[in-house]
Amino acid sequence: MQGQSQQQAYDRGITIFSPDGRLYQVEYAREAVKRGTASIGVRTADGVVLAVDKRIRSPLMERTSVEKIHKADDHIGIASAGHVADARQLIDFARRQSQVNQLRYGEPIGVETLTKAVTDHIQQYTQVGGARPFGVALIIGGIEDGEPRLYETDPSGTPYEWKALAVGADRGEIEDYLEEHYDEQMDLDAGVGLALSALASVNDGHLSPEGIGVATVDAETETFASLDDATVEEHLAEHELLPSDEE
Amino acid sequence: MQGQSQQQAYDRGITIFSPDGRLYQVEYAREAVKRGTASIGVRTADGVVLAVDKRIRSPLMERTSVEKIHKADDHIGIASAGHVADARQLIDFARRQSQVNQLRYGEPIGVETLTKAVTDHIQQYTQVGGARPFGVALIIGGIEDGEPRLYETDPSGTPYEWKALAVGADRGEIEDYLEEHYDEQMDLDAGVGLALSALASVNDGHLSPEGIGVATVDAETETFASLDDATVEEHLAEHELLPSDEE
Amino acid sequence: MQGQSQQQAYDRGITIFSPDGRLYQVEYAREAVKRGTASIGVRTADGVVLAVDKRIRSPLMERTSVEKIHKADDHIGIASAGHVADARQLIDFARRQSQVNQLRYGEPIGVETLTKAVTDHIQQYTQVGGARPFGVALIIGGIEDGEPRLYETDPSGTPYEWKALAVGADRGEIEDYLEEHYDEQMDLDAGVGLALSALASVNDGHLSPEGIGVATVDAETETFASLDDATVEEHLAEHELLPSDEE
Amino acid sequence: MQGQSQQQAYDRGITIFSPDGRLYQVEYAREAVKRGTASIGVRTADGVVLAVDKRIRSPLMERTSVEKIHKADDHIGIASAGHVADARQLIDFARRQSQVNQLRYGEPIGVETLTKAVTDHIQQYTQVGGARPFGVALIIGGIEDGEPRLYETDPSGTPYEWKALAVGADRGEIEDYLEEHYDEQMDLDAGVGLALSALASVNDGHLSPEGIGVATVDAETETFASLDDATVEEHLAEHELLPSDEE
Amino acid sequence: MQGQSQQQAYDRGITIFSPDGRLYQVEYAREAVKRGTASIGVRTADGVVLAVDKRIRSPLMERTSVEKIHKADDHIGIASAGHVADARQLIDFARRQSQVNQLRYGEPIGVETLTKAVTDHIQQYTQVGGARPFGVALIIGGIEDGEPRLYETDPSGTPYEWKALAVGADRGEIEDYLEEHYDEQMDLDAGVGLALSALASVNDGHLSPEGIGVATVDAETETFASLDDATVEEHLAEHELLPSDEE
Amino acid sequence: MQGQSQQQAYDRGITIFSPDGRLYQVEYAREAVKRGTASIGVRTADGVVLAVDKRIRSPLMERTSVEKIHKADDHIGIASAGHVADARQLIDFARRQSQVNQLRYGEPIGVETLTKAVTDHIQQYTQVGGARPFGVALIIGGIEDGEPRLYETDPSGTPYEWKALAVGADRGEIEDYLEEHYDEQMDLDAGVGLALSALASVNDGHLSPEGIGVATVDAETETFASLDDATVEEHLAEHELLPSDEE
Amino acid sequence: MQGQSQQQAYDRGITIFSPDGRLYQVEYAREAVKRGTASIGVRTADGVVLAVDKRIRSPLMERTSVEKIHKADDHIGIASAGHVADARQLIDFARRQSQVNQLRYGEPIGVETLTKAVTDHIQQYTQVGGARPFGVALIIGGIEDGEPRLYETDPSGTPYEWKALAVGADRGEIEDYLEEHYDEQMDLDAGVGLALSALASVNDGHLSPEGIGVATVDAETETFASLDDATVEEHLAEHELLPSDEE
Repeated sequence: MQGQSQQQAYDRGITIFSPDGRLYQVEYAREAVKRGTASIGVRTADGVVLAVDKRIRSPLMERTSVEKIHKADDHIGIASAGHVADARQLIDFARRQSQVNQLRYGEPIGVETLTKAVTDHIQQYTQVGGARPFGVALIIGGIEDGEPRLYETDPSGTPYEWKALAVGADRGEIEDYLEEHYDEQMDLDAGVGLALSALASVNDGHLSPEGIGVATVDAETETFASLDDATVEEHLAEHELLPSDEE
Repeated sequence: MQGQSQQQAYDRGITIFSPDGRLYQVEYAREAVKRGTASIGVRTADGVVLAVDKRIRSPLMERTSVEKIHKADDHIGIASAGHVADARQLIDFARRQSQVNQLRYGEPIGVETLTKAVTDHIQQYTQVGGARPFGVALIIGGIEDGEPRLYETDPSGTPYEWKALAVGADRGEIEDYLEEHYDEQMDLDAGVGLALSALASVNDGHLSPEGIGVATVDAETETFASLDDATVEEHLAEHELLPSDEE
Repeated sequence: MQGQSQQQAYDRGITIFSPDGRLYQVEYAREAVKRGTASIGVRTADGVVLAVDKRIRSPLMERTSVEKIHKADDHIGIASAGHVADARQLIDFARRQSQVNQLRYGEPIGVETLTKAVTDHIQQYTQVGGARPFGVALIIGGIEDGEPRLYETDPSGTPYEWKALAVGADRGEIEDYLEEHYDEQMDLDAGVGLALSALASVNDGHLSPEGIGVATVDAETETFASLDDATVEEHLAEHELLPSDEE
Repeated sequence: MQGQSQQQAYDRGITIFSPDGRLYQVEYAREAVKRGTASIGVRTADGVVLAVDKRIRSPLMERTSVEKIHKADDHIGIASAGHVADARQLIDFARRQSQVNQLRYGEPIGVETLTKAVTDHIQQYTQVGGARPFGVALIIGGIEDGEPRLYETDPSGTPYEWKALAVGADRGEIEDYLEEHYDEQMDLDAGVGLALSALASVNDGHLSPEGIGVATVDAETETFASLDDATVEEHLAEHELLPSDEE
Repeated sequence: MQGQSQQQAYDRGITIFSPDGRLYQVEYAREAVKRGTASIGVRTADGVVLAVDKRIRSPLMERTSVEKIHKADDHIGIASAGHVADARQLIDFARRQSQVNQLRYGEPIGVETLTKAVTDHIQQYTQVGGARPFGVALIIGGIEDGEPRLYETDPSGTPYEWKALAVGADRGEIEDYLEEHYDEQMDLDAGVGLALSALASVNDGHLSPEGIGVATVDAETETFASLDDATVEEHLAEHELLPSDEE
Repeated sequence: MQGQSQQQAYDRGITIFSPDGRLYQVEYAREAVKRGTASIGVRTADGVVLAVDKRIRSPLMERTSVEKIHKADDHIGIASAGHVADARQLIDFARRQSQVNQLRYGEPIGVETLTKAVTDHIQQYTQVGGARPFGVALIIGGIEDGEPRLYETDPSGTPYEWKALAVGADRGEIEDYLEEHYDEQMDLDAGVGLALSALASVNDGHLSPEGIGVATVDAETETFASLDDATVEEHLAEHELLPSDEE
Repeated sequence: MQGQSQQQAYDRGITIFSPDGRLYQVEYAREAVKRGTASIGVRTADGVVLAVDKRIRSPLMERTSVEKIHKADDHIGIASAGHVADARQLIDFARRQSQVNQLRYGEPIGVETLTKAVTDHIQQYTQVGGARPFGVALIIGGIEDGEPRLYETDPSGTPYEWKALAVGADRGEIEDYLEEHYDEQMDLDAGVGLALSALASVNDGHLSPEGIGVATVDAETETFASLDDATVEEHLAEHELLPSDEE
């Protein structure tokens, strides 16, 4: 009882520390991320894979309108989890940063440079008053100097680089799966397979093609590409992740 | 009791997260939408249909003054549900965006582009302090590259694309009806019929012409048009939705 | 008890939604309107009528200083009910809008255009922090394209068009009377008679000329005109609304 | 008890409505006016009279430093009641308005025009946050187009025109006296007499010359003039309002 | 108990009225004035006298550093009581006003003009939010058109003109003494004597020269002058106000 | 209990008065000063002495990094006590003021002028909202017109001039010592001795050279100089203030 | 209980003092520092050493993405502990300061100059409202005039200079170890050894190369350099800090 009322005293203010040095609003924004369906990123030897759970709440809703994978630049894709409208703000910010970089330096923005521009932007919303933090986590994947790179931004504004990761619902279970099965030398196809298997692992082992989205950024072409449904279904079939008929 | 006082602690602040990652003010703005009478959008093979319940609180009020369907541009219509004055702000914003697009690029604005400009505007009111969210949902329907498109904006600033949807009172029941009867291949006339039948389904099965408004955007002409009362009555008669005499 | 303290939590903040989607400050501003004496508008076939109850709190106060009917432009009059000082702000705003329209477009402002400029102005005070809503309702009547038009603005910033309406104290009873006796084809004189009878209906059936104000906007001349006391008295006599001697 | 705590919830916020549509801060500012000693205005056939109770709290204080009658322009005087420092702000505002009018239009400002400029200024302090209302009421008297005019401004920003009025302490009793004895045809001298008698009526029937201030604006000369002590004493003697010797 | 909690509700807000029309923050600022040692002003036939109690809290503190009498201009002095740092702000403001007047009009500022500039400045801090009132009262004494003038400014921003006054601790007792002994015709020397006697009257009848400060503004020379210790001691001796040896 | 909750009501607001006219935030800032180790200033016939207790919390910390004596200009030194980071802000402010004075007037800034610029700066933080007071006291010592001058600034923004003073921990005891032993005619060396003895008096009578800092401003050379450790040790030895060996 | 609720009253406000003169938000920001893993700085005769504990929360996370050592300029490195996103803001600030110094003065920034620019920046966030303090401590090490220098910045904005120090978790224990083993004359290699041994001392005596980061700034070359894993492992082996095989 005492502990609880103590907590309440600090978690209502946007930009203040609790006595134990925590920023509750940032932690609650992380809860907003967990309320979103999962998104996964996998870095392979020849590119990065983004895969997202995009469950549709009605058969009348267009699947494409559940936007969880975005093209930030020709060579960079972003997957999100959490508050959708907040994600759109950060995606727009990332796109503008990419264009500015191209205009100013005449070359594509680096994946790390872009990630840190985004996290610095996020951090401002955790320290200066008059606004709440962003309730969204991003997976930023792309090619930099020919190398695949994979980053995460969290609501505190901290950047992390990963070989493979998940954000959103069931993050812990999916990361356990990834740790067990990840192999740094796998190719892009294997990476798609791993991402789908990991997503299926918290989904009774099955995925229907229309409930997921997959995109890749190929290291050779340095080009972002969304996989069409047929291709996704092939991958699911190959890994025996399609729902069985009797279901 | 405890749960309730806990909730109160977070729902008074405009732009802060609750411990479970929710934005109560946005959720309450959704309640404001539910307090409004229903609006329906249906996308057909050759155009989009907007239909609204515009019950008049007095026979002395001009029906036309209950504005729930608005022409945003020649090729785009918008139906709203919720706080009327807020809707007017967003409609004005949408019209300005359409004009700016025409002036800047010399071509009509895309339906998706317009929708996302509106939702980005809405999102700002959910993150930056000093204002409340918009208490209104919009259905934005129009023609883009010859194709009918139908979108929803909600108080969080999230855009959704739909084949058919309802916003406002009785949303759930109306969407159940739409899911059961929707056929992607129907023509515009069938779409009007579906929209009216769905609206009647939560209205004892009957509608009087003066209590509703209907508009269409035809894919061929790319033109927004409001249906006059006689035409609406014909549709109602055709689908046996007119009130019987003994009522 | 619980319900009440719940309500208190939401009605103190100017621009926030309650859990059921209401804006209490706007609803309280409507109460401020009800605290004002009644104002009536009637649209007839050849013009609009504005009639107001302007009870004077002392015989030493000049009747003309209780301003409830205002000329907004040559062809538009406005009657108000509620917080007098707030009404003056909106009237000034309306007059400036009229002048700007004349200067910019070289033609008189439309009644609907003016009404919506006013309601958009009002809406801002309900969404953006740092100010309270306007505690006043306006009846805006005038001639547009030769046609009489009659509008209402309420504290939420919603515009309504009416054939006949009342705002302020006893709105419900007066509107009942108007609904029963209104005839769209009546002429301006009959409209004055209806407005006065409706006002008398909540006043023991009698009105003294000095306690009321009447103005008309004639569709033919497109000119706002206040009725002098003698003319008002004639109307009252014609409809047997003058106080009997023994009172 | 319940009613009281309910009231407290609304009267601390500067610019918000209570559930019954009242603005408590404006009502409390009216209480600040009542805490001030009375000021009286009387309009006669040939000019206006301003009379004020200016009790001095110490014989060492200069009577002239209790400023309750101010010359706003050659043809306009202002008497105040309530918070003295607030009154000074409004008087300064009125003087600037008068000068601006003279500069801009080459003619003296109208009394009504000046009054409404002042009340519009006052209203702003009741609607926009960050400041409190003015705790003062003004009586503005002057000559416009050769006619005596007499106005009141109250803390809500509402203008009233009067034949005769009182503001400040004992307003009700003084106005009862004025209503009983006022005659629209009286000349300026009679007006001074009425004002002094009314003031004496709440003062045991007696006034000492040094405790009061009187000024007039003559309709013929259109000139503001303060009465000197001798003249005031003559008036008091004429109306038998001087304290008797044994007091 | 009830009355107290009621008061607390209103005295925490800087710029709001209490239900009985009071501004508590201004009243508390007056308490800050009372916490300061007394300052006295006396107007004589040929100049004004300022005298202050400047008790030193340690023998190691320089007496001159307790600044309670300030020269605002050649012909104007100011004594203060209350919050010392606030007084310095107002003195600086007064000096700038004096310089601006000299530059703009080529003549020394009038004592009344200066006083009212200061009180208008003070009033702003009582009405507009974001700052507290000034916790200081000033006695402004000087020569205007050859005549000695003596003014007070209080924390509400009200100006008063006096023949003789005290501010700060024991104001009431000192003013009683002044009322009893003041003579408008006395010369400057007698004025110094009266000021010192009045100060001594609340000090066991005795004053030590180092505990007080005295300054005069002579009407003939129109010059502010501080009295040196020897002169002050002469005055004290003349009026038998020096501490007796056995003390 | 009652008194305490009463106090709490007023000490949380930065810039408001309590009912008894106190500014609690300023008083709490004074507590922040008392939490700092002591600093001492002594004015002698031929210069000023600044001495500070600079206990180091670890042998690995550089003694020079505990900055409590600062050179503000060639002829002015400043010692501080209280919140270190706040002190740095004020020292920077003082240095800029010194440079500006040199640039603008071509001469070194006066000690009193500098002190008052600093205290006016401090006062702003006690009256205008949006910031807290400075939690630091400064001793400003220097030479002005060939004369040694010694000032104190406190968190309220009040300047004081002293012959000798202490700020920070044990202020009272150290000032008692100073009062007993101070002699205005002593030379600079004696002044150093007095400052060290006073500091030792609250330190078991002993001081280790590395735990203190001493600086002087010589009246003849008008130059600020820090004493090196050897010189400090000589002074300590001379006054038998060195820790005895067996300690 | 009483003490606790007392504390709560003061620690919620960002920029206010508690009655005992403390700034709770700054103290809580220090707790945020303690929540971070430890960072160590050691100054040797020929350079400075920075060593950090960079435990990775998952084998899939890239070690390099846990950034705790940053190059601020060619000759200056910075290690951080605490809130990572806040650290990034300060590192960016430090880098901009370094570049500005180079551009403006044509020479590398001094280590002390840079440190104080950073602490002044930090202090602003503890005094001016509308933002929270930085929840991070920095160790700034570099070469100035050929000499190694080592500084700390804490959340209050106070700069400290050290011979060797730790920030973050286990600060006390690590500093005890450093005090016992530090030798000012050791060379850079010995400094690396001391830093690693100190870090191991709170880690069961062992460190794995991938869990730590080490960088040096050499006094001769004045160049910042990160040690590669092999070199770190050599150092660990040399000091027998590698985990034994059976672990």
